Amino acid sequence: MTATATVDTIWTAARLATMAADRPGLGLVDDGLIAARDGRIVWVGQRAERPAGLTATREIDCGGRWITPGLIDCHTHLIHGGNRADEFEKRLAGVSYADIARAGGGIAATVAATRAASEDDLVATALPRLDRLLADGVTTVEIKSGYALDLAGEARMLRAARRLGQIRDVEVVTTFLGAHAIAPELAGDAEAHVDRVIAMIPALAAEGLIDAVDAFCETIAFSPAQTARVFAAARAHGLPVKLHADQLSDSDGAALAASFGALSADHLEWTTEAGAAAMAAAGTVAVLLPGAFFVLRETRKPPIDAFRRAGVGMAVATDYNPGTSPLTSPLLAAAMAATLFGLTVPEALLGVTRHAARALGRLDTIGTLEAGKACDLAVWSIDTPAELVQGLGALPLHARIRRGR
Amino acid sequence: MTATATVDTIWTAARLATMAADRPGLGLVDDGLIAARDGRIVWVGQRAERPAGLTATREIDCGGRWITPGLIDCHTHLIHGGNRADEFEKRLAGVSYADIARAGGGIAATVAATRAASEDDLVATALPRLDRLLADGVTTVEIKSGYALDLAGEARMLRAARRLGQIRDVEVVTTFLGAHAIAPELAGDAEAHVDRVIAMIPALAAEGLIDAVDAFCETIAFSPAQTARVFAAARAHGLPVKLHADQLSDSDGAALAASFGALSADHLEWTTEAGAAAMAAAGTVAVLLPGAFFVLRETRKPPIDAFRRAGVGMAVATDYNPGTSPLTSPLLAAAMAATLFGLTVPEALLGVTRHAARALGRLDTIGTLEAGKACDLAVWSIDTPAELVQGLGALPLHARIRRGR
Ligand SMILES: [Zn+2]
Ligand SMILES: [Zn+2]
Repeated sequence: MTATATVDTIWTAARLATMAADRPGLGLVDDGLIAARDGRIVWVGQRAERPAGLTATREIDCGGRWITPGLIDCHTHLIHGGNRADEFEKRLAGVSYADIARAGGGIAATVAATRAASEDDLVATALPRLDRLLADGVTTVEIKSGYALDLAGEARMLRAARRLGQIRDVEVVTTFLGAHAIAPELAGDAEAHVDRVIAMIPALAAEGLIDAVDAFCETIAFSPAQTARVFAAARAHGLPVKLHADQLSDSDGAALAASFGALSADHLEWTTEAGAAAMAAAGTVAVLLPGAFFVLRETRKPPIDAFRRAGVGMAVATDYNPGTSPLTSPLLAAAMAATLFGLTVPEALLGVTRHAARALGRLDTIGTLEAGKACDLAVWSIDTPAELVQGLGALPLHARIRRGR
Repeated sequence: MTATATVDTIWTAARLATMAADRPGLGLVDDGLIAARDGRIVWVGQRAERPAGLTATREIDCGGRWITPGLIDCHTHLIHGGNRADEFEKRLAGVSYADIARAGGGIAATVAATRAASEDDLVATALPRLDRLLADGVTTVEIKSGYALDLAGEARMLRAARRLGQIRDVEVVTTFLGAHAIAPELAGDAEAHVDRVIAMIPALAAEGLIDAVDAFCETIAFSPAQTARVFAAARAHGLPVKLHADQLSDSDGAALAASFGALSADHLEWTTEAGAAAMAAAGTVAVLLPGAFFVLRETRKPPIDAFRRAGVGMAVATDYNPGTSPLTSPLLAAAMAATLFGLTVPEALLGVTRHAARALGRLDTIGTLEAGKACDLAVWSIDTPAELVQGLGALPLHARIRRGR
């Protein structure tokens, strides 16, 4: 920064939670200033240390409000056809999962509705959910495919995801989750479905629709060996991987993900100490998804202490999906991670910022307030960052800034 | 309704969940119409049965949206000084309740902050929380005193509550909760505090600040005998009562409340079958408060089946308070009541409408869509009422109508 720099916008009189790794905890700056030019942060620090000659076209007095990086929801299934409210109602009325599945409910219902939906339908029905995320200060959202399970449908889902990022001022990161469930027409043949998934990758990758490849490794879905086949294909195309791992049972998914250098392993209720160690060694982020834990009334929690001991970064996400986690608030996800899993306030907030950026492989550009990064900000009407985690259903966002605007 | 009636407003092409007791379940009307004049519903029913000659100054096509009665949050501690986010953060970081209390935390911190706050402060800090309730379609909210514990402070809290009802277009129902905790200057003398509470009632009642009287009957608060003294004083002033009962232990609070013909008994985690029977006989509503259950990580649930068997009406409320239930969304309370307590979708929705009205003694004027009642409506962008209970953190409200506007 030269002594006479002029920038586009300065936010001043703000309290900053920079989330920067080189500062302790949330990286607090009590009386802070952020300067942005061309959508990027060019200076951040204490107001008293404002560089001489720094001027701005627009200077915004934040009146002591708090600023964090824009939130990052790094695990969602935001796009799908239909909804599963009828199934939710039936379950509460005492109908069993098995009876619902026999009647064509569960994920099969969402696959049928998604296949029947046009790309426009998919965009239109996802938009209110996306808007709800934005109301919590989200500036980057990951969106998975995985409810069509055939090439045309998966492509439609991923194109819809990209369009959401054009319609709204938000960064959309796409994940190809072809290995979410076995396509119904394959009648339970998991190997055949994996073949199909692997065959889809070249076309989807060529169209630029895949930022990462995901799979659901579980007794009720794909085995570790089948998952490894998908991951090998992803690697062959230079695509990073992530994994739905160890949610309902210990299938050593965390270690499998780590062995492929996965960006993240997600859920992890049954992950072992050894799995945590493998993730730490590989730099794989643990993505905690308390919404599904809550809805499914699970009792076994992810091994938070093991992650802490091993030094595994923990992200927190909504896992929005119409069945097991109809959660559209990352702040509520953070609150649930604190109350249900015992995350501290700093852990919960780093989980929806810095570590969520790592889980998307984007820490170089987002996730903290540091010079050189995108100027994606959330400005909050709060007295202390702990309020962001404590409130249940609160709407504390004052303003959402993306790329400096 | 005469054949040539003209009304102020007609809402048409709406799906109605009337919550009317003379219809099964949610009292659904598939293609419905509501007509209102002078703030009251004058006709509600199927559009095909619209009375001949019924015209309106304003006719609103709801495009198939759902309408329910405006939501009623029948148990909140919305007004207080300070916040307890620091305490929340400390608890997550491993500091014990006992150490927090020794350092002046817990309810003592809120009492100190509330006593230090002006009426204007109390109104200003409660307003964002009230606005959050309104964003969920709330048209009536109960607000308790109980954080000042002396006459001047309790009066200030109740006046602040009344002012909120003037500043925003919402009905505020006030509850005097002088017997919430023992005032600190009384050094643990519960009997002396009960004397003080009883002595406050005449002045507060004369100022029109008390719609009902509440108490916290618990081993850590007031005994059944002390609670009965407060209730006898309330009865002497013609004031209805309600009770924080059986939350942390079985102190037979439900039966005590019933013996005074209480409008409601609230919390009820430890209530027995006998307590439920007594409530049913007295017509006392069970107010379920899943927010505190969630935050305190309780495991013992209210006896929902016993309430069903006995025919006790169940309401659901946020119990918003800065310590144990920082929850400002009645829809999230309904979702928690379903997932944590096993309420069905109709039970959860009747819990924030018809039974919540009963819990406030206002069923004659609000809580259902029926001719003669206040035209308090919530219009929702949903396909089915179950979505209101299924969503976690969703904002499905399309419009909030109070008194026909
Ligand atoms: Zn998922
Ligand atoms: Zn309460």
